[in-house]
Amino acid sequence: MTISISALDSLVDTLVSSDVVTDPDIMAGYRQDWARDPDAGTPLAVVRARSTEDIQAVMRWATEHSVPVVPRGAGSGLSGGATAVDGGLVLSTELMREITVDPVTRTAVVQPGLLNVEVKAAAAEHGLWYPPDPSSFEMCSIGGNAATNAGGLCCVKYGVTTDYILGLQVVLADGTAMHLGGARLKDSAGLSLTKLFVGSEGVLGIITEITLRLIPAQPPASTVVASFASLRGATDAILAITRTMRPAMLEFMDKASIHAVEDAMKMGLDRNAEAMLIARSDSPGAHRTEEIEIIAAACRDSGADDVFVTDDPDEGEAFAAARRFAIPAVERTGSLLLEDVGVPLPTLADLVEGIAEISKAQDVVVAVIAHAGDGNTHPLIVFDPEDPDMERRAHQAFGDIMTLAISLGGTITGEHGVGRLKKAWLPDQVGPDVMDLTRRIKHALDPAGILNPGAVL
Amino acid sequence: MTISISALDSLVDTLVSSDVVTDPDIMAGYRQDWARDPDAGTPLAVVRARSTEDIQAVMRWATEHSVPVVPRGAGSGLSGGATAVDGGLVLSTELMREITVDPVTRTAVVQPGLLNVEVKAAAAEHGLWYPPDPSSFEMCSIGGNAATNAGGLCCVKYGVTTDYILGLQVVLADGTAMHLGGARLKDSAGLSLTKLFVGSEGVLGIITEITLRLIPAQPPASTVVASFASLRGATDAILAITRTMRPAMLEFMDKASIHAVEDAMKMGLDRNAEAMLIARSDSPGAHRTEEIEIIAAACRDSGADDVFVTDDPDEGEAFAAARRFAIPAVERTGSLLLEDVGVPLPTLADLVEGIAEISKAQDVVVAVIAHAGDGNTHPLIVFDPEDPDMERRAHQAFGDIMTLAISLGGTITGEHGVGRLKKAWLPDQVGPDVMDLTRRIKHALDPAGILNPGAVL
Repeated sequence: MTISISALDSLVDTLVSSDVVTDPDIMAGYRQDWARDPDAGTPLAVVRARSTEDIQAVMRWATEHSVPVVPRGAGSGLSGGATAVDGGLVLSTELMREITVDPVTRTAVVQPGLLNVEVKAAAAEHGLWYPPDPSSFEMCSIGGNAATNAGGLCCVKYGVTTDYILGLQVVLADGTAMHLGGARLKDSAGLSLTKLFVGSEGVLGIITEITLRLIPAQPPASTVVASFASLRGATDAILAITRTMRPAMLEFMDKASIHAVEDAMKMGLDRNAEAMLIARSDSPGAHRTEEIEIIAAACRDSGADDVFVTDDPDEGEAFAAARRFAIPAVERTGSLLLEDVGVPLPTLADLVEGIAEISKAQDVVVAVIAHAGDGNTHPLIVFDPEDPDMERRAHQAFGDIMTLAISLGGTITGEHGVGRLKKAWLPDQVGPDVMDLTRRIKHALDPAGILNPGAVL
Repeated sequence: MTISISALDSLVDTLVSSDVVTDPDIMAGYRQDWARDPDAGTPLAVVRARSTEDIQAVMRWATEHSVPVVPRGAGSGLSGGATAVDGGLVLSTELMREITVDPVTRTAVVQPGLLNVEVKAAAAEHGLWYPPDPSSFEMCSIGGNAATNAGGLCCVKYGVTTDYILGLQVVLADGTAMHLGGARLKDSAGLSLTKLFVGSEGVLGIITEITLRLIPAQPPASTVVASFASLRGATDAILAITRTMRPAMLEFMDKASIHAVEDAMKMGLDRNAEAMLIARSDSPGAHRTEEIEIIAAACRDSGADDVFVTDDPDEGEAFAAARRFAIPAVERTGSLLLEDVGVPLPTLADLVEGIAEISKAQDVVVAVIAHAGDGNTHPLIVFDPEDPDMERRAHQAFGDIMTLAISLGGTITGEHGVGRLKKAWLPDQVGPDVMDLTRRIKHALDPAGILNPGAVL
C-alpha cells in the first residue's frame, strides 16, 4: 500500500489539534506494545489525537484512502493488540486525558488516554473507588483497559473492567461518532452495544470517551501471606478459601517467581517454599477479622508452613507490590513470553502441574504467578533471545499451555486480550461457529477491514 | 403468510421432546405478555421447548419456511417483547428448568425457564446469592431476565442482570447453537458476544442456557422507612444518601402509590405523606448501624415527618413487599400503562415534578414508584378502558413521560426492555447512528428478520 505525501498532507490539514508524527525515530516507539511483536510493521504516520472530532477525521480519511488504523492506548498491552502494520496509521489516544467525576451518581466520564492510576486518584478525591487494577495500573491507560476488558488483582471480589463501564463514545471505521449507554446503572434501551465494544481490541471502533461506574472507597484491608512446601497444598488452600468466602485478593506465586522477586527486592520471602499465597479481606469491622481467620485456617489446614497476618495496610501492600513486581523480576532472568490463561478453579492444580510438565518437556523455565481466586494465571516463559532453538521451544510451550487451558475448559486470555499473539488459538477455544459470528459482526461494523487488521481475527 | 398443515407436521416430526400446541384456547394464553398489547397476533403454533436441540430444529424449520418466531419466557414482560405475531411461532422456554450450582467457582448453569425465585433458592442451598430481584421475581423467568437485562430493588448496590451473566448458550436464527463465555470471571478471548445477547430481547437469538455468577449470601439487612410532606424533601434525601454511601435498597413511593397499597394491605402507611422512602443497609456488623444512621439522618435533615428504623428482617421485608405490591395495588384502580424511565439522579426531582405536570395536562392519574437510588422510576398511568378519550390521553402521557426522560438525559427503559410498546421512542433516545448500528448487527445475525420481528426495531 502506498499513500502519496499529498494524501497525508490532506489528513494533516483536516485535523484541528492533533499531532501527526512521521519522524522515523519517534515512530519507532509506536511500532510495538509490550508484547514486542517481532513482526511489527512500519507505519505511515502516528496520529496523537486530541479530540473525538479529529479521530472522526482520521477514520474518514483512512476509509477514503483504504489505510489501516491501529488504535493505541499507553502501549502496555501484552498480546500485540497495538502492533503497527506496514503503511498504516497508529492512532494514539495518549493525549486525551480529561476526567470529570460526579460523586452523586458515582460515575466518571473519562477520556481514553488517562492512566488507570489517575482514574483511581480522581475517584479517590471524592471518596470513591474505581476497582479494576491490572498489575500495570501505574502505566496502562483506561482506554486500553476498556479495549481489552482488563482485570487485575481485586477482580475476584470486585469484577473486571466491563462491570464498571456504563457508557462509551466510539468512532466507527467510517468516522461516525456515537454515544452508547451513559451514566445510568440501569438501561435496557436497545442492544447492549456498550458492552460489545468493551474488550473489542480496536477491531470494531475507537473508544474516545468512557463513562465509568464508581463505588465507595475500599475499606482498609488485612492481608494473609502463606507459604507452602507443595503446590497442591497451595491449590487446596485456594479451593478451601473460595468455597467459604470471597476474598478481596487471592494471589499465587510459584517457586521461580518467589526467587526472582526475592533476588530483586530482598524482602525476606521464603525461598524454600514451592508456592506462596497472598490473600486479603476488606470487609468492614469485625467481619474482616472473621474472614482473615477463615483464610489463615484454610492455609494452615492445607499444610502451609508459615502463615503471616497483618492489619497494617502498608505492610499488606508491600506483599501485593512484590506480587505485581514478579513480571519485571522474572524478566531480569531472560526474555519472556507472557501467558494469561484462565481455568475453572477446581482444575487450577491440573493446570499448574501441566505447566510444569510442559516446562520440562520443552526445557524452558516457566515461572507461574496467578490471580488464583479467579483461576487466571500468568505463566512466564523465560528464554534466551540469542538461542534460536530455545526461543522455538519457548514458543512451543506458549502454545502448549493455551492448548492445555482449553482442554481444561479454560480461556487463552483472562485479561490481556487476543491481539496478534494469541489469535491462532482463538478458534480452538471458541469454535468455528463463534468465529463465524465474530466475523459477521466485524464485517457489519468495518466492511473494509481497516480497523486493527490482523488483531483477534 | 400461510403455512400448510403438512409443513407444521414436518416440524412436529422433527422435535424430540417438545410440545407443539395448536389448540386456540391454549394458544390464547401465549398471545400476550403482561403488556397486554391489543395488537397481538394469532400464532400458527406454540412450541414449548424441552431442549436446545429442539430449539435448533424449530429455528431451522422457521428459516426454511420463513416463519417468524417470538421467544417467550414466563410471559411477565411489561413492554410487549413477547407479543405473538400473526402466523408465527411462539417459542416458550418455560419447560426448560434445570439448574446446577457449583459452590467452589460460585457459578450456576441454568436453563431459561427457571423462575428468578427458584434460581435464588438453588443458590441459597449453597450459602450463595443471585442478587437481581425484579419485583416480579416470584413469576419471571431467568431467561426473560437475561433477554431484558432485568433489574430490581437491590441493583443500586449490586448491579443488574448483565453483571451476573458469565456465559450463554444461544441458538441463532439459522439454528446454529453456540456457547459464549463460560464459568470464568475473567475472559478476554474474542468479542464480548455474551454481553451482546444480554438484553437483546430475542431479536438476535434464543437463549437456551445461562451461566450465572453468584456471590456469598446477603448479610442481614436493616431497613429505614421515612415519610415526607413534600416530594422535594424525599428527592433531597435520596441525593444526600447516595452522595454519602451506597444503600442496599433505596425505593420511593408517591402519595397515589401509598394510598393504593394502603387500601389493599392496610399496614398503616402514612396516608398524609406526599412521598415515602424505603432504604436498606446490609453491611456487616457495626458498619450497618453506621449506614442506617446516615440514611435516617439524611431523611430527617431533608424534612422527613417520620423516620422508622428496624433491624428485624421480616419487618423490613414487609415494607419491601408493600413497595413490590404497588403495581398490582394501583392496577386495582384501573387499567395501567406501566412506565420504566430512568434519569441521572440529580434530575430525579425534575422528572417527578414533570410527571405531575403531564398527569395534570392529560387529566389522568399517574402514580409514581421508583428504584430511587439508581434513578429508575415506574410511573403507573391509570385509565378506564371503557373511556376511549381517557385511554388516548393515557397513551399521550406515556409518550410524554418518555420524551421528558430523554430531555433529562435519561432512558426510556431502565429494566423492562423496549419490546413493541416503546420502540417508537428508541430512536429519540439513542439517535439515528445507533439505530443504524443496531440494524447492521441485527441483519448480520438474522438476515431474514424472523427473530421476534417488530420488537425493538
